[in-house]
Amino acid sequence: MKDKMTIILFSGEMDKAVAAFNLATTAAASGMEVSIFFTFWGLNVIKKKSEYAISKSQLLMQKMFNILASHNLPISRLNMFGLGSRMMKKLMKKTNMTSLEDLMKLAKELGVKYIACTTTCEMMGLTKEHLIDDVNEFAGATTYLAEAKESKINLFI
Amino acid sequence: MKDKMTIILFSGEMDKAVAAFNLATTAAASGMEVSIFFTFWGLNVIKKKSEYAISKSQLLMQKMFNILASHNLPISRLNMFGLGSRMMKKLMKKTNMTSLEDLMKLAKELGVKYIACTTTCEMMGLTKEHLIDDVNEFAGATTYLAEAKESKINLFI
Amino acid sequence: MKDKMTIILFSGEMDKAVAAFNLATTAAASGMEVSIFFTFWGLNVIKKKSEYAISKSQLLMQKMFNILASHNLPISRLNMFGLGSRMMKKLMKKTNMTSLEDLMKLAKELGVKYIACTTTCEMMGLTKEHLIDDVNEFAGATTYLAEAKESKINLFI
Repeated sequence: MKDKMTIILFSGEMDKAVAAFNLATTAAASGMEVSIFFTFWGLNVIKKKSEYAISKSQLLMQKMFNILASHNLPISRLNMFGLGSRMMKKLMKKTNMTSLEDLMKLAKELGVKYIACTTTCEMMGLTKEHLIDDVNEFAGATTYLAEAKESKINLFI
Repeated sequence: MKDKMTIILFSGEMDKAVAAFNLATTAAASGMEVSIFFTFWGLNVIKKKSEYAISKSQLLMQKMFNILASHNLPISRLNMFGLGSRMMKKLMKKTNMTSLEDLMKLAKELGVKYIACTTTCEMMGLTKEHLIDDVNEFAGATTYLAEAKESKINLFI
Repeated sequence: MKDKMTIILFSGEMDKAVAAFNLATTAAASGMEVSIFFTFWGLNVIKKKSEYAISKSQLLMQKMFNILASHNLPISRLNMFGLGSRMMKKLMKKTNMTSLEDLMKLAKELGVKYIACTTTCEMMGLTKEHLIDDVNEFAGATTYLAEAKESKINLFI
């Protein structure tokens, strides 16, 4: 039986997502079974990039949250209204660090499982259509706990 | 013997507290033994709601921290001077998501153990009288480590 | 064989670093084997205190990040442009709480292992010369995962 790792990605920041996917892909590449649970702001990481995650059926407040917390992920320090985030992306490119987009492609190739938190999806008015196709499952805390109990490494990011 | 989970709640934000208590109550409801260690800003989550956690014996700086970091918990992104936090509370209500208050009531009913960090309580000038009655114990890192070593899931939130 | 603990220190904030080193030193003092992996903003915690971590070979953006995210660590809430951080340091002193500097000295005496993340060091243009001598090793996610799999407690801070 394979060693397992779970990550709860609560944060919607680019640097934290890079850290999470760096760990996830390295673990999966070394033969571990990895699940990432996206909840709260972490859902922004798996929103479709082509559009704002809004639709007619959403409440006004849901639309506001989805526009303000868009797929343009900030960084967790020195974001400076997005300048810091753009600078970090450039730096990552210049120093040959794998971008979040490429880490996420790699994660899928390596079979990392994406689970979107049902409860926070409902709060934010997010459905399957707003999220990338790579999401494997919608589930809640019960599913997370069952996997985490069987895992050697559990992180909350 | 029951499976155990520990959570260190370092953050004093409403959304992170909801995530922590959501996990804690789901785990406890499924038969796990859960302890939450409240430290630093996480102590704001267990302050009495009826008043500011200040008293005559506190240093001026302790009073300032306790007034500024009050029981009106912000959210970790898009707080917008409290507007975001109020919006999220409304959204949670409209989408039938359990509020932090109700999650905390449930946690107590399910026997989730609350441990307040002695060291940071002393730094902030907080005593038993400033915190809700549900706190089971005041303890430090040694107690945490003893429990975490026996637990299947350990999270820092 | 000794019980192990790993901590990923992603955050570059004083309060989170104090929490991390408090746990690390308590664990090491009780006979556990502890490793701290410093990545992203966490690298600021192990920068030399005497100077800005800049050098001629760095890219302009690296210099900017290293100057802006200096060794003057903010706190994660109520930092108020550094005032909060200074207040918290004073409070820690007045209430006889061990300072971050002293916790770090203690950690070294107790044999806590410091590992600096190669990937983020490269992104930030940080080399051995910019970091304190206490760093034991430069390594990546593979090294972390190998240790975490053998550990009873793994935290992401």
